[in-house]
Amino acid sequence: MIIIGEKINATRKSISEAINKRDADAIAAIAKAQDEAGADVIDVNAGSGKENLSEEIEDMQWLVEVVQNAGDKPLAIDSENPETMAAGLEAVTGPMPWINSVSAEAGRLEGVLPLVKKYGSPVIALCMDDSGIPADIDGRIKAAGTIFEAGKKMGIEPEQFYFDPLVMPIATNQKAGTILLESIRLIKEKFQEVKTAVGLSNISFGLPAREVLNYSFLVLCMGVGLDAAILDPTKEDLMLVLRAADALLGADNFCVNYIKRYRGKKG
Amino acid sequence: MIIIGEKINATRKSISEAINKRDADAIAAIAKAQDEAGADVIDVNAGSGKENLSEEIEDMQWLVEVVQNAGDKPLAIDSENPETMAAGLEAVTGPMPWINSVSAEAGRLEGVLPLVKKYGSPVIALCMDDSGIPADIDGRIKAAGTIFEAGKKMGIEPEQFYFDPLVMPIATNQKAGTILLESIRLIKEKFQEVKTAVGLSNISFGLPAREVLNYSFLVLCMGVGLDAAILDPTKEDLMLVLRAADALLGADNFCVNYIKRYRGKKG
Repeated sequence: MIIIGEKINATRKSISEAINKRDADAIAAIAKAQDEAGADVIDVNAGSGKENLSEEIEDMQWLVEVVQNAGDKPLAIDSENPETMAAGLEAVTGPMPWINSVSAEAGRLEGVLPLVKKYGSPVIALCMDDSGIPADIDGRIKAAGTIFEAGKKMGIEPEQFYFDPLVMPIATNQKAGTILLESIRLIKEKFQEVKTAVGLSNISFGLPAREVLNYSFLVLCMGVGLDAAILDPTKEDLMLVLRAADALLGADNFCVNYIKRYRGKKG
Repeated sequence: MIIIGEKINATRKSISEAINKRDADAIAAIAKAQDEAGADVIDVNAGSGKENLSEEIEDMQWLVEVVQNAGDKPLAIDSENPETMAAGLEAVTGPMPWINSVSAEAGRLEGVLPLVKKYGSPVIALCMDDSGIPADIDGRIKAAGTIFEAGKKMGIEPEQFYFDPLVMPIATNQKAGTILLESIRLIKEKFQEVKTAVGLSNISFGLPAREVLNYSFLVLCMGVGLDAAILDPTKEDLMLVLRAADALLGADNFCVNYIKRYRGKKG
């Protein structure tokens, strides 16, 4: 399981404030904490909605520099805007960055796939199109197919794609969990060699004891072959559950990572 | 998910003491606690190894009477000895009891299947034979097949069988988890209409934070279609995880059982 640390995201108020104040120490501390907790990739989202694009781009470039100076893990350059994403990618000096994200929306496909090709990056590919998030499994598979075929034409390798079928809340749709699990299964079956990724927390929206649902859903997703998750690796209980599932699924030789995690060490 | 409450088992010292002292109040309290916590079936194991068989039989009959007077849930008559099991079944006056367990061992097959036929009971069927617990998946499927065919000849219905592939510790065999999950999948595929059941706790033997592993493994088993689990329903965290997995798998309309369980009520 590849763990993408989600915490450096300007939708969180403390992060947008740190970006606006150019508080490199605050950002670097969060990057390091995620790294030490076991993140394999550090997501970097500098936000959007500034008055002009150049500000947004400056924010992204500053953030990339700060985070890559704080450790040696690959970054995931996370933006809704292909220009901001391109600027973030240019600022990377360390290991090959991830791209977060493309989708089957026309603007994102055209704007982001050339960057995926240029950098050879792994890319989170959201299974949605210009009509939004499909309600059913078929719609998700169709969106994945659109992205996959467009990528193929450009010479992007199947294994660069981490398809995210997009988690929706079970509180509003009883089938939201099974739709997601079946989508992971089908995507891996239909587009061989591609990978899958999810963000978890939407699943429990509107329900109590959300972490119980989120952690259990991560385990279910791992059971159907999930390859990567976008999560907060500094949550020790979550990481212990993740390492437990790895061990239970035969992916942890002699349970060493599970035992290390139990002892409070990265692993 | 059918929950079989495991606590009234003479391998636990407090239970064997209560049986020897004929302490009906102590036993009844544990039966009621499991019932109130959400058990669908109450397992009743009076132990074995007494000097003579008549003592063992008396213990079982006393225990069955005490437990069935304490509530209205079906009992699972749990014994290694077909004669003790027969005596326990005879003592039942309430709803149709379960039988725990048969296996492909010659003595158990011959001794227990006639009782399954006579009472029309659901039966836990352990996937092992006279050589012990098979090391691999094929051996488990073969043992299940032996039991299934013997049952078929006697007119036992497929849906009476709850096959238990027998959990082994991941600490000693990295593949123990995937062997179990794949066995559940294959048994349900190969012997259509049969059910599956497991006891969980062996999976984590020898490892720290055992409950994290046990609970995560329950979720993985539910993900591949587990029908019943033998567990301690008075563990609130365990039951919340179980209800979470039910909800995530689309088996809890409007998440009502999950929410009830969160609020501390049975459900």
